[in-house]
Amino acid sequence: MSLVVVGSIGLDTISTPSGSVVDAVGGSAVYASVSASYFTSVNLIGVVGIDYPDSAIDLLRRHGINLEGLEIAEGKTFRWKGEYHDLNKAETLSTELNVFADFIPKLPQNCISCHSLLLANIHPSLQLRVLEETRVYHHVACDTMNFWINGCPDDLAQVIGRVHIVFMNEDEVKAFTGKHNIFSAAQSVLDMGPTLIVVKRGEYGSVALTRDYILFAPAYPVREVKDPTGAGDTFAGAFMAWLEGHAELSREVVSQALRYASVMAALNVSDFSVMGILDLQRESIENHKERLCRMTI
Amino acid sequence: MSLVVVGSIGLDTISTPSGSVVDAVGGSAVYASVSASYFTSVNLIGVVGIDYPDSAIDLLRRHGINLEGLEIAEGKTFRWKGEYHDLNKAETLSTELNVFADFIPKLPQNCISCHSLLLANIHPSLQLRVLEETRVYHHVACDTMNFWINGCPDDLAQVIGRVHIVFMNEDEVKAFTGKHNIFSAAQSVLDMGPTLIVVKRGEYGSVALTRDYILFAPAYPVREVKDPTGAGDTFAGAFMAWLEGHAELSREVVSQALRYASVMAALNVSDFSVMGILDLQRESIENHKERLCRMTI
Repeated sequence: MSLVVVGSIGLDTISTPSGSVVDAVGGSAVYASVSASYFTSVNLIGVVGIDYPDSAIDLLRRHGINLEGLEIAEGKTFRWKGEYHDLNKAETLSTELNVFADFIPKLPQNCISCHSLLLANIHPSLQLRVLEETRVYHHVACDTMNFWINGCPDDLAQVIGRVHIVFMNEDEVKAFTGKHNIFSAAQSVLDMGPTLIVVKRGEYGSVALTRDYILFAPAYPVREVKDPTGAGDTFAGAFMAWLEGHAELSREVVSQALRYASVMAALNVSDFSVMGILDLQRESIENHKERLCRMTI
Repeated sequence: MSLVVVGSIGLDTISTPSGSVVDAVGGSAVYASVSASYFTSVNLIGVVGIDYPDSAIDLLRRHGINLEGLEIAEGKTFRWKGEYHDLNKAETLSTELNVFADFIPKLPQNCISCHSLLLANIHPSLQLRVLEETRVYHHVACDTMNFWINGCPDDLAQVIGRVHIVFMNEDEVKAFTGKHNIFSAAQSVLDMGPTLIVVKRGEYGSVALTRDYILFAPAYPVREVKDPTGAGDTFAGAFMAWLEGHAELSREVVSQALRYASVMAALNVSDFSVMGILDLQRESIENHKERLCRMTI
């Protein structure tokens, strides 16, 4: 079994009411890969510059992540600088694409056919390109963001028409479909082809919708959210990793995936950058998951 | 078994994106009583004017609600006029207290001792007065609103110190406690004495918190919210009515109460005034409740 994750890799400078970090490990593919690494073997596809710190590479290796698809290009690593005032919405202070500007995902031989593929948040045209180059036996999922929904909705629609699973925030799915009711909006996405849409609602949890069922999952409670960056990527990584061993998206399988995803996202936001999801014991994750089970009606 | 409900009774003129109603049946005690009537016998305590329509009295009687505590006073019935733009927040256009201005709850003999008491949304000093006059064998609960939290927080604190169960909206519990994290805010309320607090989060469901457990309940899905008025009262009414037969607030009992409360609140918002919760078959409520069970992870 293996999960291929394609997405951004960057160095984040983040300020929140709880503190700040400079040039910390970040990027959609990194959050998703580290999160997924507790459940399956992960292949990370992305690009960094020659300034990407060895410590970050070590961190990824330590989590057993296969880095054959990690390209190291001449130039500087993608950088994002953001600030949170109310923890619900990041304000972007600056974005330096650097080597990410010319990124074309190159799939190593061992990733051309894989069990599952997570197209984490990158330009939909790159997501499409990867879709065309891979043969996936089980599940293909995409995540996205408002920037692409507003900037290239047609490309995004093409991606959505070709994946099984879509991850979107509540405001994103409403904006993309033009529908205000979350259930109608989700139905519009399912009508485009996917089997499952997972609508992420931040501290209010998530809702998974298929043609046959709806599943609500609470967010695992967090007393202090220190840094919400990467919560959605962490969620998607764990979700997809759990699905790895399950060909069918049954209610039970998706329930379990939502639980693990909710736990990992909560651990992630409880500390800056990826620090909340580093070097975890699987037993600790299981304990959190059991606790979450006892918190649902 | 019997549940005593004390609160406002009014005639509401409501405008929402789905339409409008004029002088429709409303008031916290009415929503709560009709909702509760499907699960237990209900005694309604409140005041109306001589203009209160016979059809509204019939409606209450038809639901088996005991009206010995319904005072008919000289003057006009309490009226509220409100408008919803985004369905999440009512804008009050006018409030005419009328006979409600001088309301002093008078408890008929059969209500002086009761199984359960729901102090629906009225002035905390009236809630206190009722508390002093009744002997409750099982559970006493209070609901409230921002108006009292801002206007007479000390009276409200006294009420909270004497009840077992508190219902509050998320923004209300944060405002009342001055804490931004819902779990810290709920803990502050529990520290004042209650055994249980139920934080209502509108379309995001609800969270019940005790010293021993947390329970998350989703909102039962609604495709079109026509009129959110009374959702919280309907929720509290069903919740308290279900608790009637259960002396202990165990996880299982509270889970079931949350399910019924969630279903009744959803039925309520799917139509104007109390129309969504009139003349229901218990079997239909059970079916919705079973569906909700299958929607939680």
